[in-house]
Amino acid sequence: MREGNCLVEAFNQTRYRISGHSRRNVQVLKEAFQSIEGQLESDMYGGGKVIEEFQEKMASYLGKEATIFFPSGTMAQQVALRIWCDRKGIRKVAYHPLSHLEIHEEEGLKKLHLIEPILLGDKNRVVELEDIVSQAGDVSCVLLELPQREIGGQLPDYNTLVSISEYCREKGIKLHLDGARLYEVLPYYQKSATELCELFDSVYVSLYKGIGGIAGAILAGESDFIKESKVWKRRHGGDLISLYPYIISADYYFDLRINNMERYYQEAMELAGFFNKSYSAFTIPKVPVSNMFHVHFNEAKENVETILMELYQATGIGWTGSVKATSDSSCYFEVSIGDRYREIPQAELKKAFQMLDERMKAIQ
Amino acid sequence: MREGNCLVEAFNQTRYRISGHSRRNVQVLKEAFQSIEGQLESDMYGGGKVIEEFQEKMASYLGKEATIFFPSGTMAQQVALRIWCDRKGIRKVAYHPLSHLEIHEEEGLKKLHLIEPILLGDKNRVVELEDIVSQAGDVSCVLLELPQREIGGQLPDYNTLVSISEYCREKGIKLHLDGARLYEVLPYYQKSATELCELFDSVYVSLYKGIGGIAGAILAGESDFIKESKVWKRRHGGDLISLYPYIISADYYFDLRINNMERYYQEAMELAGFFNKSYSAFTIPKVPVSNMFHVHFNEAKENVETILMELYQATGIGWTGSVKATSDSSCYFEVSIGDRYREIPQAELKKAFQMLDERMKAIQ
Repeated sequence: MREGNCLVEAFNQTRYRISGHSRRNVQVLKEAFQSIEGQLESDMYGGGKVIEEFQEKMASYLGKEATIFFPSGTMAQQVALRIWCDRKGIRKVAYHPLSHLEIHEEEGLKKLHLIEPILLGDKNRVVELEDIVSQAGDVSCVLLELPQREIGGQLPDYNTLVSISEYCREKGIKLHLDGARLYEVLPYYQKSATELCELFDSVYVSLYKGIGGIAGAILAGESDFIKESKVWKRRHGGDLISLYPYIISADYYFDLRINNMERYYQEAMELAGFFNKSYSAFTIPKVPVSNMFHVHFNEAKENVETILMELYQATGIGWTGSVKATSDSSCYFEVSIGDRYREIPQAELKKAFQMLDERMKAIQ
Repeated sequence: MREGNCLVEAFNQTRYRISGHSRRNVQVLKEAFQSIEGQLESDMYGGGKVIEEFQEKMASYLGKEATIFFPSGTMAQQVALRIWCDRKGIRKVAYHPLSHLEIHEEEGLKKLHLIEPILLGDKNRVVELEDIVSQAGDVSCVLLELPQREIGGQLPDYNTLVSISEYCREKGIKLHLDGARLYEVLPYYQKSATELCELFDSVYVSLYKGIGGIAGAILAGESDFIKESKVWKRRHGGDLISLYPYIISADYYFDLRINNMERYYQEAMELAGFFNKSYSAFTIPKVPVSNMFHVHFNEAKENVETILMELYQATGIGWTGSVKATSDSSCYFEVSIGDRYREIPQAELKKAFQMLDERMKAIQ
């Protein structure tokens, strides 16, 4: 615990960061609103120009009939799964064992919607068609998360997606995309958002991860599905009188960063290469398929943290504020490339990796 | 429908308004953030200085052990009622037939929490102790809304509140305050927020009505209740990564307006007096007990709208954008006094009431 807090403190002192776009501070909002006229009217309970225009823009980008802005992905996805369950009359869905719904939402899906999840396949790999065929049974909906964040952002082949989509349609199972990091996987698949979303009946995308907005999510699908979502959004308490602080910033950062995804992906591959060439670290996936990956060490968390703190102080480069133990003698941290990576001086980055090798060798 | 839209258009053209603080536009956010440093760190999933300090400030103001910031009152109140129901093991609550939960939330309480509401008393008057004694039975919680918005903002006597509170405590029924307009009733009761909140086990207050923030709500109670609320907030999808756009603006407008409530109340009494002296209008309540009241006419909605549009054009004063029919030959609109009332030139206001009398007489 003490070590962990020290790492955060050391991380907070660093000048450069390998992950993210910028500090999550009020400046993010100020920048987005700088060129917005004060006279622009607020949205009102889901209506009004600000929200409707953004929803239409996202519908067009995702190639879906309609979209609806939600304050959070947690709310958007529960609502999507509830609608599909109600339509089929079966409160069962299937997803990866490390889905956000399973591990980060305090069982909202079960407690609020009484929906039973079937955990597909193995937690250490992505969901394959065989998992769905053998395990999903009569579920109303299968949720796929692209990329699978908790295992470093891994992806199934595009052909696997196509075959899963075909299988689900054939079996009357709705296919939902947890696209929290959808934009970030498009360069790997070499597909447009529309092409990827065509495989899914409903799609959620985040507005604060790759895009770097303040908060918020978009749920996309056919018009009647979105109309029903609006009712559930109200029930959840998400139909706020004003959501414009999130919408305007999402819109601003979408335009600013949507075309940077290829660069983040290339930079993630470069950086993962540095880790894999180092003495003691390896990445999962070995070659990133998006802007993210996990950096693993066969070394105790406390030792890795101590070395990271030294590195931060010596180079001014912050790698992470949070290392997670996977056993007594192994640990990892997450990397997610954004605007900040390219600000790091190459010489300092090289020095950091040299130091990492030296220190790791010294404790063996 | 056509008339109604015309009324909104005419209303939107007016220079002065009898209700509210200002237009709900981006300037509301800009003003609140003007003196906030860009370097101020965002809250993170319910933690951090920005959210914790505001929650503590509101706990101190409301005289409760702890508070938690919610994106909406809809979410905050469902969560409060769910916790009280879970604790008692009975999914029944009791409230006024025109409670926000009953008419504005798409049955979220029933659909998400499977809680059955018992509607107390008569929809045209406030809840009295006798209603609770005779109807509430073994409910887990009674919710009182002060003031009762849908009937013009009426209030029970303070002594009634005390006796309801005593009765509920005796019977093991939790008492929850829907204090969406709590600050606004304190001048009438001549009580502090703390004194009023003492009568209740849990309290919700809005941050965008009397206070005039952008959105958001506070739920207050004992520490273990608030700790449980945090789990339900996550389940509802309300535990956003960043809520600071709402928190910082709520904090700013709280400080700006919390001491104006007496003035809004006095102005509401003055304006209601003008309506009651007029030829054809009357207010409910006759003498306001907060900053709000309803203006009723024994005249068809369409006729009242036509006259209002004339008034708006002649005087530049907007009374309302929405008139609601109560029958084929009667209607009303809501008034809620804020900063804007005192900007209206008295001569123009007098002229508006003269015109109202003339036009209403002319159509008899």
